[in-house]
Amino acid sequence: MKQVFPFTALVGQDQMKRAILLAAVDPGIGGVLVMGDRGTGKSTAVRALAALLPKIRVVEGCPVNSARPRDVPDWVEITDAQMVSRLTPVVDLPLGVSEDRVTGALDIERALVQGEQAFQPGLLARANRGFLYIDEVNLLEDHLVDLLLDVAQSGENVVEREGLSIRHPARFVLVGSGNPEEGELRPQLLDRFGLMVDVTSPTDIETRVEVVRRRAAFDADPSGFLRRWRTEETRQRKAITAARKALSRIETPDAILEDCAALCIALGSDGLRGELTLLRTARALAALEGANVIAREHLIEIAPMALQHRLRRDPMDEAGSAARVTRALSELFGPLAAAAE
Amino acid sequence: MKQVFPFTALVGQDQMKRAILLAAVDPGIGGVLVMGDRGTGKSTAVRALAALLPKIRVVEGCPVNSARPRDVPDWVEITDAQMVSRLTPVVDLPLGVSEDRVTGALDIERALVQGEQAFQPGLLARANRGFLYIDEVNLLEDHLVDLLLDVAQSGENVVEREGLSIRHPARFVLVGSGNPEEGELRPQLLDRFGLMVDVTSPTDIETRVEVVRRRAAFDADPSGFLRRWRTEETRQRKAITAARKALSRIETPDAILEDCAALCIALGSDGLRGELTLLRTARALAALEGANVIAREHLIEIAPMALQHRLRRDPMDEAGSAARVTRALSELFGPLAAAAE
Amino acid sequence: MKQVFPFTALVGQDQMKRAILLAAVDPGIGGVLVMGDRGTGKSTAVRALAALLPKIRVVEGCPVNSARPRDVPDWVEITDAQMVSRLTPVVDLPLGVSEDRVTGALDIERALVQGEQAFQPGLLARANRGFLYIDEVNLLEDHLVDLLLDVAQSGENVVEREGLSIRHPARFVLVGSGNPEEGELRPQLLDRFGLMVDVTSPTDIETRVEVVRRRAAFDADPSGFLRRWRTEETRQRKAITAARKALSRIETPDAILEDCAALCIALGSDGLRGELTLLRTARALAALEGANVIAREHLIEIAPMALQHRLRRDPMDEAGSAARVTRALSELFGPLAAAAE
Amino acid sequence: MKQVFPFTALVGQDQMKRAILLAAVDPGIGGVLVMGDRGTGKSTAVRALAALLPKIRVVEGCPVNSARPRDVPDWVEITDAQMVSRLTPVVDLPLGVSEDRVTGALDIERALVQGEQAFQPGLLARANRGFLYIDEVNLLEDHLVDLLLDVAQSGENVVEREGLSIRHPARFVLVGSGNPEEGELRPQLLDRFGLMVDVTSPTDIETRVEVVRRRAAFDADPSGFLRRWRTEETRQRKAITAARKALSRIETPDAILEDCAALCIALGSDGLRGELTLLRTARALAALEGANVIAREHLIEIAPMALQHRLRRDPMDEAGSAARVTRALSELFGPLAAAAE
Amino acid sequence: MKQVFPFTALVGQDQMKRAILLAAVDPGIGGVLVMGDRGTGKSTAVRALAALLPKIRVVEGCPVNSARPRDVPDWVEITDAQMVSRLTPVVDLPLGVSEDRVTGALDIERALVQGEQAFQPGLLARANRGFLYIDEVNLLEDHLVDLLLDVAQSGENVVEREGLSIRHPARFVLVGSGNPEEGELRPQLLDRFGLMVDVTSPTDIETRVEVVRRRAAFDADPSGFLRRWRTEETRQRKAITAARKALSRIETPDAILEDCAALCIALGSDGLRGELTLLRTARALAALEGANVIAREHLIEIAPMALQHRLRRDPMDEAGSAARVTRALSELFGPLAAAAE
Amino acid sequence: MKQVFPFTALVGQDQMKRAILLAAVDPGIGGVLVMGDRGTGKSTAVRALAALLPKIRVVEGCPVNSARPRDVPDWVEITDAQMVSRLTPVVDLPLGVSEDRVTGALDIERALVQGEQAFQPGLLARANRGFLYIDEVNLLEDHLVDLLLDVAQSGENVVEREGLSIRHPARFVLVGSGNPEEGELRPQLLDRFGLMVDVTSPTDIETRVEVVRRRAAFDADPSGFLRRWRTEETRQRKAITAARKALSRIETPDAILEDCAALCIALGSDGLRGELTLLRTARALAALEGANVIAREHLIEIAPMALQHRLRRDPMDEAGSAARVTRALSELFGPLAAAAE
Repeated sequence: MKQVFPFTALVGQDQMKRAILLAAVDPGIGGVLVMGDRGTGKSTAVRALAALLPKIRVVEGCPVNSARPRDVPDWVEITDAQMVSRLTPVVDLPLGVSEDRVTGALDIERALVQGEQAFQPGLLARANRGFLYIDEVNLLEDHLVDLLLDVAQSGENVVEREGLSIRHPARFVLVGSGNPEEGELRPQLLDRFGLMVDVTSPTDIETRVEVVRRRAAFDADPSGFLRRWRTEETRQRKAITAARKALSRIETPDAILEDCAALCIALGSDGLRGELTLLRTARALAALEGANVIAREHLIEIAPMALQHRLRRDPMDEAGSAARVTRALSELFGPLAAAAE
Repeated sequence: MKQVFPFTALVGQDQMKRAILLAAVDPGIGGVLVMGDRGTGKSTAVRALAALLPKIRVVEGCPVNSARPRDVPDWVEITDAQMVSRLTPVVDLPLGVSEDRVTGALDIERALVQGEQAFQPGLLARANRGFLYIDEVNLLEDHLVDLLLDVAQSGENVVEREGLSIRHPARFVLVGSGNPEEGELRPQLLDRFGLMVDVTSPTDIETRVEVVRRRAAFDADPSGFLRRWRTEETRQRKAITAARKALSRIETPDAILEDCAALCIALGSDGLRGELTLLRTARALAALEGANVIAREHLIEIAPMALQHRLRRDPMDEAGSAARVTRALSELFGPLAAAAE
Repeated sequence: MKQVFPFTALVGQDQMKRAILLAAVDPGIGGVLVMGDRGTGKSTAVRALAALLPKIRVVEGCPVNSARPRDVPDWVEITDAQMVSRLTPVVDLPLGVSEDRVTGALDIERALVQGEQAFQPGLLARANRGFLYIDEVNLLEDHLVDLLLDVAQSGENVVEREGLSIRHPARFVLVGSGNPEEGELRPQLLDRFGLMVDVTSPTDIETRVEVVRRRAAFDADPSGFLRRWRTEETRQRKAITAARKALSRIETPDAILEDCAALCIALGSDGLRGELTLLRTARALAALEGANVIAREHLIEIAPMALQHRLRRDPMDEAGSAARVTRALSELFGPLAAAAE
Repeated sequence: MKQVFPFTALVGQDQMKRAILLAAVDPGIGGVLVMGDRGTGKSTAVRALAALLPKIRVVEGCPVNSARPRDVPDWVEITDAQMVSRLTPVVDLPLGVSEDRVTGALDIERALVQGEQAFQPGLLARANRGFLYIDEVNLLEDHLVDLLLDVAQSGENVVEREGLSIRHPARFVLVGSGNPEEGELRPQLLDRFGLMVDVTSPTDIETRVEVVRRRAAFDADPSGFLRRWRTEETRQRKAITAARKALSRIETPDAILEDCAALCIALGSDGLRGELTLLRTARALAALEGANVIAREHLIEIAPMALQHRLRRDPMDEAGSAARVTRALSELFGPLAAAAE
Repeated sequence: MKQVFPFTALVGQDQMKRAILLAAVDPGIGGVLVMGDRGTGKSTAVRALAALLPKIRVVEGCPVNSARPRDVPDWVEITDAQMVSRLTPVVDLPLGVSEDRVTGALDIERALVQGEQAFQPGLLARANRGFLYIDEVNLLEDHLVDLLLDVAQSGENVVEREGLSIRHPARFVLVGSGNPEEGELRPQLLDRFGLMVDVTSPTDIETRVEVVRRRAAFDADPSGFLRRWRTEETRQRKAITAARKALSRIETPDAILEDCAALCIALGSDGLRGELTLLRTARALAALEGANVIAREHLIEIAPMALQHRLRRDPMDEAGSAARVTRALSELFGPLAAAAE
Repeated sequence: MKQVFPFTALVGQDQMKRAILLAAVDPGIGGVLVMGDRGTGKSTAVRALAALLPKIRVVEGCPVNSARPRDVPDWVEITDAQMVSRLTPVVDLPLGVSEDRVTGALDIERALVQGEQAFQPGLLARANRGFLYIDEVNLLEDHLVDLLLDVAQSGENVVEREGLSIRHPARFVLVGSGNPEEGELRPQLLDRFGLMVDVTSPTDIETRVEVVRRRAAFDADPSGFLRRWRTEETRQRKAITAARKALSRIETPDAILEDCAALCIALGSDGLRGELTLLRTARALAALEGANVIAREHLIEIAPMALQHRLRRDPMDEAGSAARVTRALSELFGPLAAAAE
C-alpha cells in the first residue's frame, strides 16, 4: 500500500490546512474551495489529512463504506458481513466525468446479459465518510458542481432513472480547487461552498528548500520519515477526535450572533448563509482549540474563509475579497491581532 | 423522518409567504415566481408551508398520491389498496433534468428484460396534490418551463410516446425562484406565472439575528422548537382550511371588475390574464381574511404580485415594475395605506 | 367532459374570428396565422369554433376519425366498426415536439417485444377533420412548419421510414399564432399560410369588463351560460353548414378576376398564390353571407387577411402590411366603407 | 387518381419550360436549376411535363420502375413479373430529409425481427426513369446536393453500408428550385447543374388573369379542361418522342465547336463543362426543332441557361449573369434576334 | 464495362499528368495534391492512368486485391482461390464519408443476427494496389486526411475497435484535388503530401476545341477512339513498367544531395521531408526517362511540385509558391531552360 | 520485422535526444514535450531510442507486457505462461482517438454475442514499459491530455465503467510533440510535462546533407548500416543501463537544493513542481554521466528543459522562455560555459 506524506509535515499553507481541518471536524460546514497557484500541495494536503484521521470501521465489500451491517443499502448483496478497518477514503473527481459515473447508474450490461436489474454505484458512493476532491472545479460543468453541492449538503445520493429508485448515504467533505485565471465559478455556486481560501506559492528560499527537502527525505525513505512524524500526527489526530465530540457542547453567546449579523450587513453579503457558516465554523474552531464558548477571536480568525466568496463584486473597491473582510473586521471590532498565517 | 422548520416561525419575507399561501388556497391562481437574492429562505418557506398544510390521505403505494382507490391510474398495479396519511409533497426539480424524468417515460429496461410495457412515472406524478419547486427557474430550458406551466394549468400530465398513451392528474402549486442577475425569463413565460414577488435579504441586525437565533434554536432542539410554535401553526392551518372552503362563496361586485380593467389598461398589460389573475387572487385573499365580498383593499394588496410581471418594458420609466403598479394604484384609487410589509 | 366557452359569446377580435370561420367553411383556403399580443383568446376562439361546428360521425376507435368504415386505413385493426358522434377535434402542437410525434412512427417497442411491425399514429392523425393549433408558431423549427403546411395542403400524411409506407388522410384547418416580438417566420413560410390577421388587446374598459364578466359567469355556472347562448350558437352553426353547401355554386365574374390581378400587381406580391387565395376567400365569404355571386365588397373585406403577409418588405414605406393593402384597395376601388371591426 | 394541369396550358415562363423540356429530351444534359420568385409554377411545370410524357412500361411492384423483368435488381423479390403502364414518376425531396431516406438503407427492423438482411429502397429508387424535384435546393445540405448530382450524373445509386453492397439504376432529371434571397449554392455545386434559368412573376394583368382563369377552369372541371387541351398535349408529346430518337443523328460542325470555345473563353468560365453542356443542349434543341445540324442559332438560344451559372463573379460588372452571357453572345456573333421570351 | 478515355489522349495539363505518373512509378513519393480550377480533368486523368497501367493479378473475391493466395488476410473466407486479372482500382472518397466506411468496421448486423464477429472492409481495402481519389480534399475533415496520409505512408490499415484487431495492406497512390478558393489545408497536412501541382483551364481556343473534339469523338465511338490511341498507350505503359524496374538501380551523386539541401535551405522549407521527396521524385523521373544517374535537370524539373507546398508563407513576397521555387532554382543553378509545360 | 534507424546515428537535435534519454533513465521525471518545426525527426528519435534500449522480457500474449507471470492482470486469460523478449514498445496516439480506445473498454460485442463480460485493453496497456508518442499534442482534446498525464504520473490505468473495475500498470514515458503555430497547450497542462525542449531544422548544408545521406544509406542497406553503428549503440545502451542502476545512489548536497529554490523564485515559476523536476532531472543526468553527486553543472545543463514551460508569461519580456531561464542561470551562478548544443 502506498504511503502518504504526513499532514503535520506539510510546510506552510496554514489557511488551507485549517479550512480542511475544520471541515473534517464538522462536515456540516459544507465544501471547501481552494483557489490559487498550481503545485501548492492542495491534493497532497487532502490525502495527508485523510491518512491522519482515525481509521474507519466498514463492512467489508460494502460500496458505501457502511459502518454497520444494518446500514448496508438494500441493493447491495452481502452475506455474513465482516467488519474491517480502512483509511478515510479520498475520491478524485476527474474532469469530463459523466454524471452516471458520479451518481452511479444502472448496470446496463448486467441487465442485458443476465436479465437482472443492478445498480452500479458511482464515485459518490465511494466518497461516503471521506473526502471528494475536485481539481480544477472551475472547469467542471455547472450542473455537476450543483449536483455535488446538493449531495454534500443533504448527505444522501438519490438516483432515479429508468425504473430505479436507489438511495444511499453520501456524507463527505467536498474539496474543490482551481486556478482563478482559468475561469470563475458562478456566484450561485460560490455561495454554496462553506469555506474558501486562497493559496500562493511560498516566495522565500527557506520555505521552498524545506518543502523540497522534506519531500526528498520522504521519497528516499517513507517509513523512516513517517516514524519521525508519528508523535506530531498522533497529537493532531487526538485534537480532531476531541473536537468532534465537543462540538455539540460549545456555547454561543448572543453577542456572537450580533457580531455575525453586523459583519455580514457591513459586507453586504447576500442572504443568510454567511451568518450560519460563520457561526458553525467558529464553533468548530473553538472545539478544535478546546474552548467551551465561541469567542470573538474565533470569529475573526475564520471570517475571511467563511465570507470572502459571498461578497457582491464592488467595481469601486480594488481590494481583494479577503482583504475586504479583514478591513470590515477591523472597522467593527477594532485593530486585529496579526493573523496567524 | 426529518423535521421541518415551522412556517409561522419564518422571519420577514411577507410578500413571498403571502403569495405561496394564496396559491395554496387557490391553486388555480397559477404558479408563483420568486425573484431575488440567494439565501432568503425561498425553498425553506415552501417546505415549511407544505408541512403546515393538513396531511393528505393517499392510497398507499400510488405514485400520484391518489386520494381514493378509484382515482388510481389504470397503469398502476395496486391490489387491496390501503389509505395512509402523508405530508403534502414538495418535489424539487433539479437543473439539467431531462424531460423524461419530469413527465415520466417508458421503462425501457423492464420492456427489454421482461417483455412488458411499463410506465415509469416522473416528478410530475410525485408532485400531484403538492408543490413543485424549481430553483433557478431562469436557467431551465424554455421548453421545460413551458411544459411545467402547461401541466400546472391543465392539472393533467399526458405522455404520448412510442405507443404509450398515459395520463395522470398533476395538480400542484408551481413555485419557481431565480436570481435576476443570472438571466431573465422570456415575457411569454413570465406572463404564465400567476404571481411574482421580489425578495431581498433583510438589512437590519435585529431581523438577521432573529433569523439565525431561531435557526440555531431549531437545529439544537427541533422537537422543542416545534412544540413552542404549535399553536401558531394550528391557527394558520385552520385559516387555510377555512379559506379553501369559503372560496366559492365570495362575492365579486361589478365595481371590482371595473377596477381590475382600469388598472390593467392604465398599466398597458397585454391580454386579459392580468384581470383574471387579479380577480382570482383578490378572492383568495378575501377568503383567507374571512371576508365575504372582494373589497378594493384586497385588490390593492395583491395587485403588485399579480401584475408586475405583465407590464411591457418602458425604457423611459426607471421605476421597477412593482413600483409602477403601486403608482398606478395610487393614481387610480388615491393614496394607499402603507403596505403591509 | 369539459365544457367549452361559446364562440358567439367571444367579445371583439372580429378579424380573427372571421378568418377561422372562413377557413372552417373552406379548408382549401389554407392555414390561418394569427399574430399579436398574448392573452387575446386565440386558443379559446379555436376551441370555441370547434365546439360550435356540427358534431362529426366517426368510426369508434379509428385514430384518424374516419367517417365511414371503408375509410379506415388498412394499418388500423377494427373489427365490427361502430359509428359514434364526436366534437370536431382540436389538436395542440406543443413546442419542441418531435417529427415522429407529429407524423406518427413505427412503434419500436411493439416491434421489439412482440416482433410485429406497427404504426403509431401521431398528432396529424388525430387532427384529421378538425383543427391543428400551434401556439408560438414562429418558434417552431422551420422544417416542421414546412411539413405541417405540406400536409395541410395535400390533405394526406405519408410516412415512409424503415420499411414502413403508411398513408392516411389529414385534412385539417391549421391555425398558428405567435407574438411578432419573439421572432418572424421566413417569407417562404408566411406565403404558404392562406390568411393572416393581427390581434391586439382591447383598450376600452367596457370591452375588458365584458370579457371578464362573461368569463366569470361561465366559470361560475358553465351550463347556465351555455344555455343562454344556445340560440346564437345554433344560428351560427346553421350559417356555416349552409355556406359549406353553397360554396360550389357561387359565381365568379370576370371583373373580380381582374380586380384580384390588379390588386396583387399594385402590391407587388410575389407569385400567384395571392390571387388564388383572394378568390377562394372571397367566395367563402360570399357563401357565408348567403350571396350567389362574389362581389367587390367581399374582396375588399378579406383582402387584408389574404394579402398582407405576401408583400415584399418596403423599407421606404413605414405603414404596416395591412395598412398597405387597405391603401391599395382604396387607390384602386375608391374610398372604402369603414371596416367592420 | 389526381388529375394534373396540362403542360401546354401553362401561361408564360418559356425559359423554364424549355429547360426542363430539353433535359427530358436528353437527361445527359444534367440537372436543371430554377431560381426566382415563389408561386411561379415551378413544381406545377415539372408535374405537368411528367404527365405529358409517354407513359412508361414498368415491372409491377419493382421499386425502381424497371423496364424489363431482367432489369429488376437482385435484392428485389418478384415472382412472375407483370408489366404495367405508369406515369413518369415525379419524386419530391423534402427539406430535412435524411441521407438514408434518399439512398435507401438497411431495413433495421426487418433485420432485428426476422433476422434477415433487407434493403429498403429510398427516393432515388422511386425517381428512376423520372424526375426528382427539390424545392429550396439552396437550403439543402451541401453533401446531399453533392450526392444527388453524383447519382444524377452516373445514373446509378450505390449503397455500401454495414455489410450491404446494393446498387440500382437511378436515371432521372434533377430539377432544383430556390429563391436567391434565401441563400446561394456553392460555386462547386452550381457548376454541376447542367442548366440554370431565372423565373419572375408576370407583371401584366392579362397574363395573371389568364393564369387564374385557367386554374379556376381546371379546378372547376378538370376532365373538361384536359379534353380541351388534348390536341396540344399530343403535339408536344410527339415532338419530344421524335427528338429523343433524332438525338444521335444530329451533326456537329467544327465551327460550332469553335463558337463554344470562343464563348466560354470570352466569359472566363472555369473548366470545360461549359463547352460540353453548350454542345449537348444545343443538340437537344436542334432535335426538338427537327433540325439535322446544330446551328449557331441553337447555341445562342440556349447559351444563357447553359453558362450563366459558370461565370466567376465580377465585382466590377453589375450586369446579371444571364445579361453577361447575352452581351458576350452579341459581341462575338453580332446583334442577336430578340429573345423568344 | 464502361470504357475509359485514354491517358495519352488527354490534352495539356502536363504537370498534373507527370506528377501522378511519377507517383505511379514510385508510390513511396507519397500522395499527389492537385489544386485549381474545376473541370480541368483531374478525375479523368486518374482514371485514365489507372486504365493505362498493366492489369493486376488478384485473388478472386479478395476484398484487398491480394496478389497471391497467401497474402489474403485471415479475416477473409476464401476457399479454393482463383487468380483473375483486373484493372488497377480507382476508389473515390466521397465528402462526408464516415471513418468507419473508410477503414472498414465491424459488421454490426452480422454480429447481431448471426452471432458472429465479422469485419466489413472499407474503401482503404478496395484501394489497395491502386489509386484513392479525393475531390475537394480541402473540405474533408482534418482527421480523415490525417488518417489517409498515415495509411498511405505506412501501406497498412490497422483497425482496432471493440475487440477487433484487423490489419490489411493498403498501398495506394493518394490523389487529392481541390479549389483553393474553397479553403486551404493546414500546413501540417500540406507537408505530408509528396507532390503538389496547380492546374488551370486552358485559355486558347485551339486547345479547348481539341479537348471537346476528342471528348465528342470518344463519346460517339469509344471503341474506335481507343483503337486509334492504342499504340501511344502501349508506349507509355512500357515506359512505366521499365521505370518501376529501374528505380533501385539509379545512382545518386553527392552533388545532387548538396543541391537538394542548398535548395531547401534557400527556400526555408521546414524539416527534411523536402530533401527526401526531392531526391525520390528526381529518381523516379530519371527512371521514367531511362537515365541511370539523377541529374540536376531532373531535380530542376520536379522541384516545384516537390517543394512549393512546404514553404513558409512570406507576406512580403507576392510571388506564388511555385514561382518562388523556380526563382530559387535559377538563383542557385543559373538560368533555367524553359519549363516543359 | 521492420528495422529501425539507430539512435546514435541521428544527426544533431541534442536537446531533444538528451531529454528523452533522461526520461528513459528515470521515467519519474514525467512526460517530455517537444515543440517545433515539422520533419525534425521527433518520431524517429523516439523509435530509435526504444530500439536501442535493452530488450524487455514479457509474458507471451500479455496485453500489458507483464515482466512476470504473477504480474499478469486477473482479467487476462493466459494458461501456461511463456516468457519472450521484445523491443521496448512505442505506441502512437492518433489524433481524434476516443477515450475508450486509449483506456480500453468493455468489449461490447463479446458481451452481446457470448454473454460474457470482457475487457478490451487500449493503447495505455500496450504502452506499458515503453513510450507513448503523441504527435500534435496541442491539437488533442484537453481531457485526453489530462488523462494521459494522470496515468503517466500514477503508473496505473484504472477503468471503471458499467460494472467494470479494471486496473493495470501503465508505466511509460510520454512524449508529446507539436508545432507552436498550430495552437498552445493550457498552462495547467504544460506544467504537468516534466521536460520541454524546442527543436528547429538545421540550417547548414553539411548537417542536412549528412542527414539525407545517412537516411539514404539506411534505406539502401539497413542491415549494413546497423552493423556499422553497432558499437556506438552498444556503448549508449550500457550507459543507460548503468545510469538506471546508479540513480538511487546519487547524493544531493544542500547547496543544490538552495540553487533549485533560488532559480525557481528568480523565475517566478508557480508551485513547487519546478524544484522537484529540476532535482530529479539533474540526478538522472549525473547518473548518465557517471557522477556520484549532483553538481551545479548538471543543474545548469537541464534547467532550461525543466523550467521553460513553467514561467508565467511576461508581456514586458520579449525573450523566449528558454532564454529567460538561461539569463536567470547566469545572473545567479555567473557566466555559463557555452551550452552543449
